Amino acid sequence: MSDPNNLADFLDLGWQRLTRGVADRHAAARHPIFATVSPTGQPEARTVVLRGASRADGTLEVHTDGGSDKVKSLRASPRAQLMVWDEKAKLQIRLSTSVTIHQGEDVADRWKNVPDGSRIAYGASPNPGTLIPNAHAYTKLASREWFTVLTCHVESIELMQLIDPHRRAVFKANDGWVGEWRVP
Amino acid sequence: MSDPNNLADFLDLGWQRLTRGVADRHAAARHPIFATVSPTGQPEARTVVLRGASRADGTLEVHTDGGSDKVKSLRASPRAQLMVWDEKAKLQIRLSTSVTIHQGEDVADRWKNVPDGSRIAYGASPNPGTLIPNAHAYTKLASREWFTVLTCHVESIELMQLIDPHRRAVFKANDGWVGEWRVP
Repeated sequence: MSDPNNLADFLDLGWQRLTRGVADRHAAARHPIFATVSPTGQPEARTVVLRGASRADGTLEVHTDGGSDKVKSLRASPRAQLMVWDEKAKLQIRLSTSVTIHQGEDVADRWKNVPDGSRIAYGASPNPGTLIPNAHAYTKLASREWFTVLTCHVESIELMQLIDPHRRAVFKANDGWVGEWRVP
Repeated sequence: MSDPNNLADFLDLGWQRLTRGVADRHAAARHPIFATVSPTGQPEARTVVLRGASRADGTLEVHTDGGSDKVKSLRASPRAQLMVWDEKAKLQIRLSTSVTIHQGEDVADRWKNVPDGSRIAYGASPNPGTLIPNAHAYTKLASREWFTVLTCHVESIELMQLIDPHRRAVFKANDGWVGEWRVP
C-alpha cells in the first residue's frame, strides 16, 4: 500500500473507483446514490446509473426521464450529492455537485447511443409519480423527447476509507483539488 | 407470486425486507442510505447501519456519533429519507421520516448493548469532520457521551419494484398505510 498520508494518491484511488463504474457494470460505482432536495425542502435519495465520469472536466453524467421527481427537484435546487460505497476498496465516495439539465437537440448524439432495450426508461404516460388506479395502468414511451442528461459539475469530493485506522479527506475544485485531511 | 395489484401484500414485502436488515448483517436493508439536508440546504447522503425497525411503531433506528455532520444537519432540519436497494427482491424502498435525537441517560440501555468493539464508532477528538494535519491525527473516544440514537418516525414509504412490468406504490401514515399506485 502507498503512503496513507499521500493526498494525491488517495484522490487517484477515488477517481479510479469512480471511472470503473462507467465501463464495468459490476463495479460499485455503476450505481451511485443520487441525493437531492425536493421543492419543499425534503431530502431525497435514489439509485442511478453512472453514464460518464471525466476527471479532466470534473463532471459525472446521469441519464433520466425528464418527467421524473429528480428533475423537478433539480429545477427547484440544482444540487446533487452522488454517493458510492465501494465494498472492495472499503471506500465511501461523496461528490457534491451542481447539475445542469440537457434535453432535445442538445443530447441527440447521446440518444443515438442508447440501446433500444434501454430507451424504455425515458418517458411514461402519465408522468412518473402520477396516481393510477392499478399497478400497471401506464405506458412507457421510449421517447427521445423525455430523454434527459444530467451533467453533474463536481465541486468537492469526500473520501472516507474504512480500513484501520480510518481516514477521510476532502478535495475541492476551488483550491485545485489539493485536498485536506479530516477526522473520520 | 401474489396478485401484483394487492397493495397490502406489497407493503408486507417492503417491511419484510426492511426488518431482515436488523437481524441479518448480510441483508440489503442492513445498510440503508441516510439522506439529509445540510444547514446550508445542500443534499447529503451516507451509508448507515439499521439498528431497529418496528412496523407497529412506524419507526427505524440508527446509531451515530453525536459530533457527526448528520446530527448537525438534523438539528437544523429534522428530516431524513432512508433508502434501500434490495437486489434480491429488485425492490427500492424509500422512507420519508422525521427524526428525533436521543442521548445520555435516555439511551443508557441501548449503550449497554453496544459491543466493546463497536463503541469506537462513537466519539472522536477532535470532532468528526475537523481539519487535521495528517490522516491519523485523531483519537477515537468510544464514549457514551457521544453515543446518539436517531429515531426515524416513518411518514411515508415508497416501494418501486423493477420486475417487468415495473410497479410503484406510496403508503402514508396519515391515511392508515392503505397505499396508492403510482407510475414507476
